[in-house]
Amino acid sequence: MKVGIIMGSKSDWPTMKCAAEMLDKFGISYEAKVVSAHRTPQLLADYTSSAKERGIKVIIAGAGGAAHLPGMAAAFTSLPVLGVPVQSRALKGMDSLLSIVQMPKGVAVGTLAIGEAGAANAGLLAAQILATCDDDLMTKVEAFRHEQTETILSNPNPAED
Amino acid sequence: MKVGIIMGSKSDWPTMKCAAEMLDKFGISYEAKVVSAHRTPQLLADYTSSAKERGIKVIIAGAGGAAHLPGMAAAFTSLPVLGVPVQSRALKGMDSLLSIVQMPKGVAVGTLAIGEAGAANAGLLAAQILATCDDDLMTKVEAFRHEQTETILSNPNPAED
Amino acid sequence: MKVGIIMGSKSDWPTMKCAAEMLDKFGISYEAKVVSAHRTPQLLADYTSSAKERGIKVIIAGAGGAAHLPGMAAAFTSLPVLGVPVQSRALKGMDSLLSIVQMPKGVAVGTLAIGEAGAANAGLLAAQILATCDDDLMTKVEAFRHEQTETILSNPNPAED
Amino acid sequence: MKVGIIMGSKSDWPTMKCAAEMLDKFGISYEAKVVSAHRTPQLLADYTSSAKERGIKVIIAGAGGAAHLPGMAAAFTSLPVLGVPVQSRALKGMDSLLSIVQMPKGVAVGTLAIGEAGAANAGLLAAQILATCDDDLMTKVEAFRHEQTETILSNPNPAED
Amino acid sequence: MKVGIIMGSKSDWPTMKCAAEMLDKFGISYEAKVVSAHRTPQLLADYTSSAKERGIKVIIAGAGGAAHLPGMAAAFTSLPVLGVPVQSRALKGMDSLLSIVQMPKGVAVGTLAIGEAGAANAGLLAAQILATCDDDLMTKVEAFRHEQTETILSNPNPAED
Amino acid sequence: MKVGIIMGSKSDWPTMKCAAEMLDKFGISYEAKVVSAHRTPQLLADYTSSAKERGIKVIIAGAGGAAHLPGMAAAFTSLPVLGVPVQSRALKGMDSLLSIVQMPKGVAVGTLAIGEAGAANAGLLAAQILATCDDDLMTKVEAFRHEQTETILSNPNPAED
Amino acid sequence: MKVGIIMGSKSDWPTMKCAAEMLDKFGISYEAKVVSAHRTPQLLADYTSSAKERGIKVIIAGAGGAAHLPGMAAAFTSLPVLGVPVQSRALKGMDSLLSIVQMPKGVAVGTLAIGEAGAANAGLLAAQILATCDDDLMTKVEAFRHEQTETILSNPNPAED
Amino acid sequence: MKVGIIMGSKSDWPTMKCAAEMLDKFGISYEAKVVSAHRTPQLLADYTSSAKERGIKVIIAGAGGAAHLPGMAAAFTSLPVLGVPVQSRALKGMDSLLSIVQMPKGVAVGTLAIGEAGAANAGLLAAQILATCDDDLMTKVEAFRHEQTETILSNPNPAED
Repeated sequence: MKVGIIMGSKSDWPTMKCAAEMLDKFGISYEAKVVSAHRTPQLLADYTSSAKERGIKVIIAGAGGAAHLPGMAAAFTSLPVLGVPVQSRALKGMDSLLSIVQMPKGVAVGTLAIGEAGAANAGLLAAQILATCDDDLMTKVEAFRHEQTETILSNPNPAED
Repeated sequence: MKVGIIMGSKSDWPTMKCAAEMLDKFGISYEAKVVSAHRTPQLLADYTSSAKERGIKVIIAGAGGAAHLPGMAAAFTSLPVLGVPVQSRALKGMDSLLSIVQMPKGVAVGTLAIGEAGAANAGLLAAQILATCDDDLMTKVEAFRHEQTETILSNPNPAED
Repeated sequence: MKVGIIMGSKSDWPTMKCAAEMLDKFGISYEAKVVSAHRTPQLLADYTSSAKERGIKVIIAGAGGAAHLPGMAAAFTSLPVLGVPVQSRALKGMDSLLSIVQMPKGVAVGTLAIGEAGAANAGLLAAQILATCDDDLMTKVEAFRHEQTETILSNPNPAED
Repeated sequence: MKVGIIMGSKSDWPTMKCAAEMLDKFGISYEAKVVSAHRTPQLLADYTSSAKERGIKVIIAGAGGAAHLPGMAAAFTSLPVLGVPVQSRALKGMDSLLSIVQMPKGVAVGTLAIGEAGAANAGLLAAQILATCDDDLMTKVEAFRHEQTETILSNPNPAED
Repeated sequence: MKVGIIMGSKSDWPTMKCAAEMLDKFGISYEAKVVSAHRTPQLLADYTSSAKERGIKVIIAGAGGAAHLPGMAAAFTSLPVLGVPVQSRALKGMDSLLSIVQMPKGVAVGTLAIGEAGAANAGLLAAQILATCDDDLMTKVEAFRHEQTETILSNPNPAED
Repeated sequence: MKVGIIMGSKSDWPTMKCAAEMLDKFGISYEAKVVSAHRTPQLLADYTSSAKERGIKVIIAGAGGAAHLPGMAAAFTSLPVLGVPVQSRALKGMDSLLSIVQMPKGVAVGTLAIGEAGAANAGLLAAQILATCDDDLMTKVEAFRHEQTETILSNPNPAED
Repeated sequence: MKVGIIMGSKSDWPTMKCAAEMLDKFGISYEAKVVSAHRTPQLLADYTSSAKERGIKVIIAGAGGAAHLPGMAAAFTSLPVLGVPVQSRALKGMDSLLSIVQMPKGVAVGTLAIGEAGAANAGLLAAQILATCDDDLMTKVEAFRHEQTETILSNPNPAED
Repeated sequence: MKVGIIMGSKSDWPTMKCAAEMLDKFGISYEAKVVSAHRTPQLLADYTSSAKERGIKVIIAGAGGAAHLPGMAAAFTSLPVLGVPVQSRALKGMDSLLSIVQMPKGVAVGTLAIGEAGAANAGLLAAQILATCDDDLMTKVEAFRHEQTETILSNPNPAED
């Protein structure tokens, strides 16, 4: 497994599966698991502390509300951690975003957008990170980016499907 | 020690000492310690897991920005945890507040106001909690409240000092 | 009755019943009542002033919008008051949250999250407070917390129900 | 006394005196008093309940943070209540504003702007309210408004003092 | 007509009719009219400038988004103007609220809550204003307030309809 | 005069002079005047209604707080109106911005950034608008843009002055 | 083509077509095209750099979220650029608005309201800009504005359709 | 050069030098350059398009206000891009944050906290990314993290320097 995708609750999966789907596009192996910072703090400590030796290279963590999972994952590992603010009910993810992004100096979380776009981009950024030392993967990332450009260029009329 | 006051950084002390000062008014014993959720996560786990057996009854935790300390303290203990959002530089504590108060169902943090007033009130609420089974302390709390009322009643002219 | 649950309007009940349900889990006796700070201020004064002598140990107060009930309850009693910001229609509970949490020094409200999670956690925090001098209750709280941890550990695959 | 100016703390006076100064311009009698919703709730109940029989026609209430004074004043009287959100330290008065303006149906507070401009306008609006049945006062209000218009018209160059 | 109810668009009527219904409860005569600050500025100037001589005592103005109607009504008349922030689509009335309440010193708008509650309370506050020199109306306002209190007192169980 | 610069108060001049300075760079004639929507509404109506026949091509309007000047200017003229949100004391211009930009369908204000950058850009955008039918002016705008690019290219080291 | 309407995605068309419809009312020729700042940056550079020589006079750019299209369009051309913040899912367009309006000194975007009203007004403001040197178009704009005024004046009863 | 640090203006350097200083701690080579998305868009395209072939592995981009630099850098390269929201004057970096983090699906920016802490953490996260395929660097990162933990553990008394 190259990437660990963790999330605070099963209810985060409809968002976080977008990260998994993006990794699938690049053929990157991953595991997806519910790890709650608040309800399973010891699991969080164990999972993240041991991630590097299990071969994980990047951790993607998604949570909503007082979203402590990404920051606490980063507290327990030196692997790069990417955070996905899951859209919350009342405050629409603004609480999730600020809880994830406003980390103090010394422990970093690379934060993506609120919701599904952010989860997909966490998968993409994980691929870009892995591609810094994997030329084949970099080629795949560039092909994905190129294709996405072509999709627009080939059908630029907004009034047509 | 009845109350544990923890905070993410020494820079939180000017805020958090207001909690200590309030506990001093009631003669409640406490310890104050820097425990960073992000930089010393194992200390956080150890401190909070063992708090009850060390005789701590209430934990007061203050932090700013992506303020995970109160919620993570609550994750590791069944003692009541009170959270103080320390005013942050850019977002003035709105990030601290949302990171502390928006906890998911199942792990609770009783959150106070941003900044010094909130820290003082964390000390007061800790006293009120302890007073639920300590009549002498309840008498002290009521006296404090009464005195504060009298201070206003005896000098109600806003234009005079 | 150990806990008094009050709310500004019957429309707050779908939120506030989550506090009652949590207390039920722990076998804690409570009463639930509509007490409006704005429409029944004298009832509020009477209810909260007499709460301690009626045996109430903790007050849980929920309200939305310009949510004055928790803070005014705290003004009339020295018992611990927990505040639940009910999600409001236009501003999604941000008004409720700020109205409850930003109390001035000297009168404290322990504030929980906006909406149902906050109400449930108010019940849980009330139990934790009562458990500071009730070992049997503390055991129940710890069992609840343990069970909630086990629920995740036993079924960590986010893609399965 | 035609107008009662109340505020939650002496620290609100630098803001609230702007209301007093505006009433002075119109020769309207007033009293200014510290009445704290949270620290002197019984005084609040007594002051506002008896205001009408003491001849008060309009109440101006200013407070900051979880600003409950205007709404609670309105809860205890049928006189018109005008609310002034005092600028708070961390959230710059946004908490004060939402705590005052977002009143539920059935108890109204006419809310002015955050800070000194709002306090001055509370004085002006009180004068306008009293002027609805006092032609002499209406003439004074119109003269004030006219003069303020003339001040601009006579010196419209922004680059000159 | 004692009260003029104006609004920026017919789409504001579902909100603003709550003001009309409240005035109906007190038997206060009113007129309701679409007057757009932006699309009919001359009508706004004419309507508000002549309101006093037509016998209007209070103006209630509702608008959404960049809500200039209440403030501009206040610019053209010395009558008390009450502003109702209509809930807007994207920003949920926060834009409406700030556009109405943050008036500069010298021209006042008494602002109510966002949406229907605010409109109803604008009607109530208009009645309270008129009642400052109409004892019969004050009696009606007090009866309304009393009845609203009794409704809660007679049926305080939140779990029953 | 090609451009009319209006503002709600002399206190807006330190911001709005940045618009004037930008117009000076392009040799575009302008007049700058205090015109308050709230305190001089008739002047606003007169100024804007007659602007086109006096040769004005673009109006730049700056105001803070409940900033109605740009939208009301647009209500009285068919000339393009550019709005500058002046930074307000409490809410830092967020109120100014929303009051200016959230105009309803049918009356448009082209809104620039909060504060001095926005005022300067209002001058620049006015120049760009006039340049749509003035090739010499377009050449000047392009030269200004080119020069600003060169300034960076010729000195790209951030650590040097 | 006098006006170029560009947008970041086909999903922006339901909003942006309101700009096209407004231009249709005035008989102004335009082209509408998907040009993504992020997915087709070279197309953006090419489209905007060449717009002037292709006869485009005004560019209308709409985008949501981290909405860079309007500002980057302005970076590549000296033509006036009008920005439309498309309503985003989580943050309701507040992110779009701030991303578009808060441009630094030296590159300007005239920003309209969030969503359909803003798109329609972008079309209107483009017409007003073109009308600064086209008297026939100015007459059409004035007729549109006049008609919109008459629509309200002829049917001012809010309770009637 | 392993890392490219770019920023929109020299005024961003006091913030962005914290990224450089962090890279210095790890002995990672970097270049720092002013590249403005709005004022030098072609330089941005050239710099980012050619970064990979020049050996750059990670780009750190900082900007304030309508902060388009990080997202546009990501548009032109497949290298990982980390974004630093520079604190802006009026909105304190909330505009910068939303402009950077809310990227659409398909082009990712890993966003750090507002201001200096975010810049330092961008340097740290860049090191963590490079360390995914550089064991020596990973050892250095772990040592840095360990040292930072020890600093707290060795001096946990908040009241002492």
